[in-house]
Amino acid sequence: MSFSPLINELITALKCLPGVGAKSAQRMAFALLERNRDGAMTLSKVLHDAMEHVSHCEHCRTFTEARLCKICENPMRSETGQLCIVESPQDVLAVEQTSEYKGKYFVLMGHLSPIDGIGPAEIGLTELVQLLDRESIQEVILATNPTVEGEATAHYIGQICREKQIKATRIAHGVPVGGELEYIDGNTISHAFAGRRPV
Amino acid sequence: MSFSPLINELITALKCLPGVGAKSAQRMAFALLERNRDGAMTLSKVLHDAMEHVSHCEHCRTFTEARLCKICENPMRSETGQLCIVESPQDVLAVEQTSEYKGKYFVLMGHLSPIDGIGPAEIGLTELVQLLDRESIQEVILATNPTVEGEATAHYIGQICREKQIKATRIAHGVPVGGELEYIDGNTISHAFAGRRPV
Ligand SMILES: [Zn+2]
Ligand SMILES: [Zn+2]
Repeated sequence: MSFSPLINELITALKCLPGVGAKSAQRMAFALLERNRDGAMTLSKVLHDAMEHVSHCEHCRTFTEARLCKICENPMRSETGQLCIVESPQDVLAVEQTSEYKGKYFVLMGHLSPIDGIGPAEIGLTELVQLLDRESIQEVILATNPTVEGEATAHYIGQICREKQIKATRIAHGVPVGGELEYIDGNTISHAFAGRRPV
Repeated sequence: MSFSPLINELITALKCLPGVGAKSAQRMAFALLERNRDGAMTLSKVLHDAMEHVSHCEHCRTFTEARLCKICENPMRSETGQLCIVESPQDVLAVEQTSEYKGKYFVLMGHLSPIDGIGPAEIGLTELVQLLDRESIQEVILATNPTVEGEATAHYIGQICREKQIKATRIAHGVPVGGELEYIDGNTISHAFAGRRPV
């Protein structure tokens, strides 16, 4: 015995959400049915609209329902001649929260991962090359994650820039501000030592 | 700065799910956009259908999209003359999984909680009284949770049964099968001692 067909379907469908297993899907289904049908109806509509209309910005590849995202639309953003390469839309948000970077972005929507069949084309490097040829970029800032894949990706894009004689820089890795040395991994500490600067 | 309007709406809408905060809603939104648009479209449709069509069984009050749930529809279920009172549809599933109970159910969809304005009418006791007058019930099994509210609710329904001279029983509380005595709370152990039986 189980629940009614439609409730079973709802529980199954909720399991498409990352981190939601059978038990939480069941809890979610009943919570919505019991206490928040309006919220569920809104979620149904917004899910549909977002999946139908959200695509990629034609310039930077981030997610947006418009042809160009807010940042690419802003002509001031081209003035610095800087292009920051990140892995995800969430990374754009993280950099923007510092309010210090004023240039444009290019969002890879991933990183190189040959084992998973993710090569240069899958992370938009064809479009990136076109963009570098088309626009006058003075500096490419490689802000991919400090993981094995992120480093490999940064290295690969760095080579493209070198061929085109465009300056490429990598963001610094080191001890996070407020971090305590004793809790930082050795690899990070090595980076922090290698990147030391006179005070 | 934040994401595009539609993505922000999606993140907000996902927060209507119980246990989902800002950070997990963001993670869910991007996971669906990146990797599972079909799953999200299905979820959108099923959410809509479930909120629109799932209502309460006319006999036992559990959730179902039909007029009567599978159990109430089955005439064999009336033969035992037993009616098991539970708090939620999930409790029905829990009892059904034992495959031992063959009677019908009445689902309160909650418990008495005067502080939250939940009185007898809100948990369907008007309908329960009508059901007890209409059908030939030999035994009401009170299977509400062993919480303060669940006990108070069982006590209240027990009194209704007494007035109608219908036998009412309460499920036993004690040490769970496979439970280790040293980890069981004192209240449960008291119940287990009070309910002891000759072997
Ligand atoms: Zn853009
Ligand atoms: Zn029913």
